[in-house]
Amino acid sequence: MLVTTRTVAFQEVDAAGLVFFPHFLTYAHEAMEQLFAPLLEGYVGLILGRRIGLPAVHVDAEYSAPLVYGESARIETSVVHLGNRSMVIRYRFVRERDQVLAAVVRHTVVVTDLDKKKSCPIPDDVRRAAEAHLEVEAP
Amino acid sequence: MLVTTRTVAFQEVDAAGLVFFPHFLTYAHEAMEQLFAPLLEGYVGLILGRRIGLPAVHVDAEYSAPLVYGESARIETSVVHLGNRSMVIRYRFVRERDQVLAAVVRHTVVVTDLDKKKSCPIPDDVRRAAEAHLEVEAP
Amino acid sequence: MLVTTRTVAFQEVDAAGLVFFPHFLTYAHEAMEQLFAPLLEGYVGLILGRRIGLPAVHVDAEYSAPLVYGESARIETSVVHLGNRSMVIRYRFVRERDQVLAAVVRHTVVVTDLDKKKSCPIPDDVRRAAEAHLEVEAP
Amino acid sequence: MLVTTRTVAFQEVDAAGLVFFPHFLTYAHEAMEQLFAPLLEGYVGLILGRRIGLPAVHVDAEYSAPLVYGESARIETSVVHLGNRSMVIRYRFVRERDQVLAAVVRHTVVVTDLDKKKSCPIPDDVRRAAEAHLEVEAP
Repeated sequence: MLVTTRTVAFQEVDAAGLVFFPHFLTYAHEAMEQLFAPLLEGYVGLILGRRIGLPAVHVDAEYSAPLVYGESARIETSVVHLGNRSMVIRYRFVRERDQVLAAVVRHTVVVTDLDKKKSCPIPDDVRRAAEAHLEVEAP
Repeated sequence: MLVTTRTVAFQEVDAAGLVFFPHFLTYAHEAMEQLFAPLLEGYVGLILGRRIGLPAVHVDAEYSAPLVYGESARIETSVVHLGNRSMVIRYRFVRERDQVLAAVVRHTVVVTDLDKKKSCPIPDDVRRAAEAHLEVEAP
Repeated sequence: MLVTTRTVAFQEVDAAGLVFFPHFLTYAHEAMEQLFAPLLEGYVGLILGRRIGLPAVHVDAEYSAPLVYGESARIETSVVHLGNRSMVIRYRFVRERDQVLAAVVRHTVVVTDLDKKKSCPIPDDVRRAAEAHLEVEAP
Repeated sequence: MLVTTRTVAFQEVDAAGLVFFPHFLTYAHEAMEQLFAPLLEGYVGLILGRRIGLPAVHVDAEYSAPLVYGESARIETSVVHLGNRSMVIRYRFVRERDQVLAAVVRHTVVVTDLDKKKSCPIPDDVRRAAEAHLEVEAP
């Protein structure tokens, strides 16, 4: 499990005064980038150098408590399924001020050759980075 | 079914060159605002005037084809479940150039008193606007 | 002068409840894309096909009245200087409900070969599109 | 001078592959929030608690070198003019990999009572936080 923290930015709330709900997916993606930061050249090198990307094919997000400007969430990131070409990453967002669960996001990505525009096997170093945070969910 | 069109903006792609996946939820929210535009004072009046919001409690998004800058999707929006305090809205994104299904988003919202910060029954005019696009899914 | 309209989106306000000020530059860029829409393949083709971009080298923005969620601005776009490799585009934002001037943005762009990463002469069709909205400012 | 660092995010580039130019203003605002973080309750408390905001009335941005995904800039933030109700904040963005100046933003803000929607004198603690980074520019 990788643990990071994210604070809701001034410009990330909406006209109802709450964090705009798509931003949880942005925060999830940021946490995923941290998970793959140990790669040589990092996630940036994976995308821009090796031209391998991890586009989402499925997202499931449950929202249980809102966040407002300036509030922080602890994000607990785990790989809960690791296949040959895809993986499922789960992010639990825990609101820091009261430890209430704010959201759980499940994010299925397919490893993709960005130039050929088709899926490819998970490279060894990407697999190792994922395995370091593997926590297979009970069925 | 409400039909709208959305074109991917210059700033909505990511470093992999594809529309950043959380933006589909933004596009969905924009379509929902259109669905409630027939309200007196519109969705804006609902939020800012009547202080009633529709925060998401669940989102399920399946992504099946990417969009790039300048590509348009036809968005078909239907209310697929209408409860007492919540509803489920489904958005089908069809890529205009080839009619390929790009994404399907299911978006569960709870009608909420933004000042009291608790759920409330769906107001009559909001219900009528939802019913105009009701298409209950087969179980 | 090109006249377009832009409404502040639900997610474009900040925690102070006003449109987040960088978004005026986003709105300006959108208006510029409209100005170049008459190009064969449009602005999208210029960027993705011909790989010619118009990065900003200077922006000057005066803000005189705020906009909130749901408010619309009429955007009056003119090319106020047209050089060999650069141009200055002015955008006047007029708040629709009361015709108050909300902002004036001056945006200097340099025509750039995105692959060579250096400036290039303004292509003839780009120049013609700019000339159609040329309104040289008095010194 | 306050020194912070900002890395261009995956979703902050545009279809030309460069950081979308309005984001420099977002980065500037983030640096300003850091400058006022020493306030009791921070900038968040100023906005949400005391209902005092610092809306922009003028922005001048010179862009001299692009940034791409994953590149970091050192941001040097100084208050270069401190008036009774307004101040000018300057942000110099230095690209970390080669120490090239990427942008300079000058940002004039007016201290504003967000409920009365009018300017107000700079509160003492806000002034002290600004003075800690005062570096008046030669005329």
